[in-house]
Amino acid sequence: MVSRVVFGRGSFNQLNEILSPKRLNTKAPFIFLVDDVFKGNAWLTSRIPLSYEDKLLYISAAEEPKTSQVDALVEEIILTHKERPSGIIGIGGGTLLDLAKAVSIMLTNKGESKDYQGWDLVKNPAIYHVGIPTISGTGAEVSRTTILTGPQRKLGINSDHTPFDQVILDPELTQGVPKDQWFYTGMDCYVHCIESLNGTYLNAFSQSYGEKALALCKEIFLEGSLDVQESADKLMMASWHGGMSIAYSQVGVAHAMSYGLSYLLGVKHGVGNCIVFEHLEEYYPEGVAMYKAMREKHNISIPQNICANLTDKEFDIMIDVSLSLEPLWENAIGKNWKNIITRQKLKELYQKM
Amino acid sequence: MVSRVVFGRGSFNQLNEILSPKRLNTKAPFIFLVDDVFKGNAWLTSRIPLSYEDKLLYISAAEEPKTSQVDALVEEIILTHKERPSGIIGIGGGTLLDLAKAVSIMLTNKGESKDYQGWDLVKNPAIYHVGIPTISGTGAEVSRTTILTGPQRKLGINSDHTPFDQVILDPELTQGVPKDQWFYTGMDCYVHCIESLNGTYLNAFSQSYGEKALALCKEIFLEGSLDVQESADKLMMASWHGGMSIAYSQVGVAHAMSYGLSYLLGVKHGVGNCIVFEHLEEYYPEGVAMYKAMREKHNISIPQNICANLTDKEFDIMIDVSLSLEPLWENAIGKNWKNIITRQKLKELYQKM
Repeated sequence: MVSRVVFGRGSFNQLNEILSPKRLNTKAPFIFLVDDVFKGNAWLTSRIPLSYEDKLLYISAAEEPKTSQVDALVEEIILTHKERPSGIIGIGGGTLLDLAKAVSIMLTNKGESKDYQGWDLVKNPAIYHVGIPTISGTGAEVSRTTILTGPQRKLGINSDHTPFDQVILDPELTQGVPKDQWFYTGMDCYVHCIESLNGTYLNAFSQSYGEKALALCKEIFLEGSLDVQESADKLMMASWHGGMSIAYSQVGVAHAMSYGLSYLLGVKHGVGNCIVFEHLEEYYPEGVAMYKAMREKHNISIPQNICANLTDKEFDIMIDVSLSLEPLWENAIGKNWKNIITRQKLKELYQKM
Repeated sequence: MVSRVVFGRGSFNQLNEILSPKRLNTKAPFIFLVDDVFKGNAWLTSRIPLSYEDKLLYISAAEEPKTSQVDALVEEIILTHKERPSGIIGIGGGTLLDLAKAVSIMLTNKGESKDYQGWDLVKNPAIYHVGIPTISGTGAEVSRTTILTGPQRKLGINSDHTPFDQVILDPELTQGVPKDQWFYTGMDCYVHCIESLNGTYLNAFSQSYGEKALALCKEIFLEGSLDVQESADKLMMASWHGGMSIAYSQVGVAHAMSYGLSYLLGVKHGVGNCIVFEHLEEYYPEGVAMYKAMREKHNISIPQNICANLTDKEFDIMIDVSLSLEPLWENAIGKNWKNIITRQKLKELYQKM
């Protein structure tokens, strides 16, 4: 679990105070990985405390994070600096947070990041790493995974060394998020709850977190009685609790299928979940109905027919990626999932999207 | 925050697997502090893995933990073993968990434990320490405090080094708890929620945890639709979430006053909270009404007239202890609390108990 967390509007201002005691020496830099939407946004960037050899790297979150990207960042950091960094700080959404987690792991573990995709393959503790979300929903700030698209698959580096050592939850940082992005990423949290609460892996730990995150999602996306700040504060907590819920259970059908879309088509994770979830009434009837009510209430449009022109070979690639995520299917359907989730069934579902 | 947690019935069986990688060497023992109600209970004790110089110390939880007790345990451990322990493992309720936290801190910090009562006075990281609750409600398994009765006051050692490195949440371990103890300790959790949710320090982080813990308390203590196992599982999570809620806000009137009872009369914390809460309608009208409904439903009797024969000097001692807990009063009443909570007011309240 995350060792330390601060919460509150303006808590981002504590960044220097938090980092200073963690500086190993003046040659060991802090590396800030920052979503490039903040380039030129002095309101945020002027508060990033750069000293000595510290470096700020702007990174685009237009695409899902890749193992090759992680490896290139690690190489760049090693070649540029004489000493191992004092810490890696990710500032952004799930993409930036996952990159920060993966880079901090790969600075202390040999080989390529693709070798660590899976469960509990990381041997050495990561470099000190800090997560600062600027959009809410993915749960990347709290999870024990960092989900990367590798040469063969989209899969997380799941390990005890993955979670952040420190998280700063400052809901003020989410104020500039565009509405559709707010909805897609919020729905990532909502889908986490539905998948966790309806999964066979559920236990009282995950249930309590999932129920709270779901209740918050309803307040935020359906009931509409919150003001802007309350809504942002609560969505940051929903993301946190939703992430905790799946950390101790597992996601399900929507994630298993949206990973296929991301792998083949580069569809971003939040909108990918929405595209898939539209068609999962069979598996999550109540969850999908409530999702549709939320989508209509906020008048959000979801991309249609993105699979319309795919070849059989392309469908096969998506189906392979999806079926490889065995724990997700087992959680969603049960131990006999292979009898129910056939290649044909998945193809029919993908064809609707 | 707690770095690692496992949850589930039977998860206590993972203890050896969890501890083994943490053993520094064969001379650096694991010290198990175990509630002496488990003496002779082979179902539990046979699963405590003792190797090399490891030691199991049975400790009575009949009294609240004391700074002198912590100092004596630390001295005993230092004198008995050539090397610093590999870890301290607390198995029991709040008393045992708080002792384990305090001992692990005092093994690496000079002086006496009374010197560290307060906020953020601990300088050095504690010894690796593990908490395994066997009763649910106090939140000691998740909090950043260890509440000790010292020569001058009852006050916690609140620090970033206090939380456990590892917690094992195995609801099966709570199966032998007597009914009145179950209720008193459960009400500690309930009171945490009421005090946190009605406090001026409340924020969205604490609120989300407090609301979930409160919802679980209602399910467990009022609605009565759960079976024995579900109820125990959920109470363990209520304790966890309630503890998280106050970790990021503060407790209030009931705790401030029950600390006075504990200090003077040695009243145990859980029942002390109940004794006080009976008379706090003025501060928590809805919370007290629901508490009384729970107490009646479970036919629990609360000690009466424990202050009947106290002298003025004794009332003064309780009032001094209570008024010294300034953050609790400020949270409960607001910045101008000193105008409202007079010595006379507290005396009148104590006289009812």
